[in-house]
Amino acid sequence: MKDVSNKPDSFRSARAQCRLRAPQDCIERLRRGDTDKGDALKTARIAGILAAKRTDELLPLCHPLPIHRAELEFELGEEQVTVLAEVQTIGPTGVEMEALTAAQMAALTLYDMLKPHCRPDQLEITDGRLLEKTGGKSQFRRYLR
Amino acid sequence: MKDVSNKPDSFRSARAQCRLRAPQDCIERLRRGDTDKGDALKTARIAGILAAKRTDELLPLCHPLPIHRAELEFELGEEQVTVLAEVQTIGPTGVEMEALTAAQMAALTLYDMLKPHCRPDQLEITDGRLLEKTGGKSQFRRYLR
Amino acid sequence: MKDVSNKPDSFRSARAQCRLRAPQDCIERLRRGDTDKGDALKTARIAGILAAKRTDELLPLCHPLPIHRAELEFELGEEQVTVLAEVQTIGPTGVEMEALTAAQMAALTLYDMLKPHCRPDQLEITDGRLLEKTGGKSQFRRYLR
Amino acid sequence: MKDVSNKPDSFRSARAQCRLRAPQDCIERLRRGDTDKGDALKTARIAGILAAKRTDELLPLCHPLPIHRAELEFELGEEQVTVLAEVQTIGPTGVEMEALTAAQMAALTLYDMLKPHCRPDQLEITDGRLLEKTGGKSQFRRYLR
Amino acid sequence: MKDVSNKPDSFRSARAQCRLRAPQDCIERLRRGDTDKGDALKTARIAGILAAKRTDELLPLCHPLPIHRAELEFELGEEQVTVLAEVQTIGPTGVEMEALTAAQMAALTLYDMLKPHCRPDQLEITDGRLLEKTGGKSQFRRYLR
Amino acid sequence: MKDVSNKPDSFRSARAQCRLRAPQDCIERLRRGDTDKGDALKTARIAGILAAKRTDELLPLCHPLPIHRAELEFELGEEQVTVLAEVQTIGPTGVEMEALTAAQMAALTLYDMLKPHCRPDQLEITDGRLLEKTGGKSQFRRYLR
Repeated sequence: MKDVSNKPDSFRSARAQCRLRAPQDCIERLRRGDTDKGDALKTARIAGILAAKRTDELLPLCHPLPIHRAELEFELGEEQVTVLAEVQTIGPTGVEMEALTAAQMAALTLYDMLKPHCRPDQLEITDGRLLEKTGGKSQFRRYLR
Repeated sequence: MKDVSNKPDSFRSARAQCRLRAPQDCIERLRRGDTDKGDALKTARIAGILAAKRTDELLPLCHPLPIHRAELEFELGEEQVTVLAEVQTIGPTGVEMEALTAAQMAALTLYDMLKPHCRPDQLEITDGRLLEKTGGKSQFRRYLR
Repeated sequence: MKDVSNKPDSFRSARAQCRLRAPQDCIERLRRGDTDKGDALKTARIAGILAAKRTDELLPLCHPLPIHRAELEFELGEEQVTVLAEVQTIGPTGVEMEALTAAQMAALTLYDMLKPHCRPDQLEITDGRLLEKTGGKSQFRRYLR
Repeated sequence: MKDVSNKPDSFRSARAQCRLRAPQDCIERLRRGDTDKGDALKTARIAGILAAKRTDELLPLCHPLPIHRAELEFELGEEQVTVLAEVQTIGPTGVEMEALTAAQMAALTLYDMLKPHCRPDQLEITDGRLLEKTGGKSQFRRYLR
Repeated sequence: MKDVSNKPDSFRSARAQCRLRAPQDCIERLRRGDTDKGDALKTARIAGILAAKRTDELLPLCHPLPIHRAELEFELGEEQVTVLAEVQTIGPTGVEMEALTAAQMAALTLYDMLKPHCRPDQLEITDGRLLEKTGGKSQFRRYLR
Repeated sequence: MKDVSNKPDSFRSARAQCRLRAPQDCIERLRRGDTDKGDALKTARIAGILAAKRTDELLPLCHPLPIHRAELEFELGEEQVTVLAEVQTIGPTGVEMEALTAAQMAALTLYDMLKPHCRPDQLEITDGRLLEKTGGKSQFRRYLR
């Protein structure tokens, strides 16, 4: 694990995304909040927030950070849902991995709740990437999604 | 959480994949095992196995299952690495989510260890899907990747 | 930790409850799902289910059990919400503590999400008890709540 | 999860309580430290302290905080035990939920250790509330219990 | 993680030990249960039991097992305490690692609670080994300690 | 849990060790990275780092600390491997327990991966102690190992 003792605390935020492709009627179920296992979007939001806070347990070389904010949003398309995760901290290192982990775990939660409603080959998690990162020495912004 | 008390225990296995796209020199680092944070493939294997065993903590509506085997493999391409996860259990419900979670967490670990070596827009996690599932009432096999 | 190796596996279920007293407008927020932190009932359901699965980590002398089902329900009264938790397993020991833990953690989650909307002395968690237990050597049913 | 990046770190403490009602001979067992599962008060103290440190994993929208102190006390009455939890931090948000969670998990631990010694309808966890909170913008003190 | 799907469930137990060397007055504190942080032996017992249940999270290639019993004992000598851990399960693989982990975590807990009372070079954890293992294909018993 | 609110944050580091005695051919397997369960040294490194970050969950009275660095090293002898752990933080209390826990969990991981290759009485974890501690009011350095 890299040493971050020399890095000053600063405000840092990161936004990441991934996408779940799913059949139209599954997207409809997300919109109505009525899968057989419950309201998938609201469950996935919680799973993503909890995952953001536990990233350093899941990714062995990540530093523990005091997560100041973690939030998930979902954009429903025709045959896909885009999962957007945003995480903020004041710390010595960035929160990219926290945002990426939150997005992926939220997408996996949606997958888990939709899988009784379609065939496995109709579900795919894709387009997982960092959208924006502020704070620290390097700033990064992806303008197009 | 759905009731699985009426489902008999049976042997179940699942294989899942995802892909991390990364620049050639990053793939080379994976091959040589020498990122600044250590040997990324071997670290990702451990992260994936640990994630498989904790899937029911990460995905709120997953059942806890006695994981009998979890293994990760990595296929290095020119500008991508394919992460393959296989999980087995004897239990009342399947291990698809365990295999998918293992693959995604392994890919995120690779991402975390490669990110000091390239720009964020050069890394993307994609093609996350179930490849095969045996046991339980429905069997599924995806022949093409 | 008591030895349960001699106890045969059997179907076991437990139902438990607790109550959160809160001002009328807070109960109204629960009904509409619109606290400042999100939909409190749906979040509390997830927190309760997750807590049921981790009971053996939280209560030092509880045995790990393969939770087959965990579910939460909420009955909204005028100035209180009753949290009902039901847990099922097939195992060598009962799931009373899992049901009680699920109910309490769900109530604490409601408390956490309502506290920006009222004064601390308006919130109280009370009436935490087992309602029903089946399986194992002793059966128990509380007919009145 | 609400953003706390703008909130300055300050010293914060909270005290919370709950009560476990139990038959007289169970209270006596607590006093003597001799339930069949071991010394219940000392075990509950540890369970409460551990729970305080993991509150942000249990309550989805709580922020992780560097817990500086967590302590439990038990007041034995004739047919009840009052669990008092006190938690302190220096952080951007308060520790009410940590104190409340510590008290409830300690009470559940006592319940778990007393239940082989009485009937389920003789045990009840009640009166869970915040007693005092200092630091941050609002201060609160409940003078009567 | 090795596949244990072909291994039949059987009763399995393991006993392990380790030793903490400490100055006489520290041993005396253990005996009286009065370190500045509380009763160390009772706290270490709980830490050991909890660790036994989480061994598969701590040791990456250990299988999750339904721990049926975990217990710790402490033998106080003049300038050392011997920590004995015993774990039992009915499962497809043994509980040696659970017993060893329980003993080590209990010893580390004692170390943590004694360290305000002596110098670091007066504390040492040693003699960590398996004492006995039953069940599975190989049985093992160490007669001398 | 002792109150550390009055202690100022300062840079703190600790180094700890333990030793695993094992037969020559097992040490050879460590060197070549080829136990039946995989590369033991690289797995143990990860287990140790993860354990350092979770010390406050494992040792009940330890404070949570923002681990800034955790690293493991292994010195292979003829019939033993010395595990060295180093941990750094900027915090109100020291990281001795984190370093000791990291070393022990790494050694237990090695034990777990070597045990299919030898008899139980050929493996022993010993010499667990603090080597160096800096920061805080007391400094300590053990010059000889």
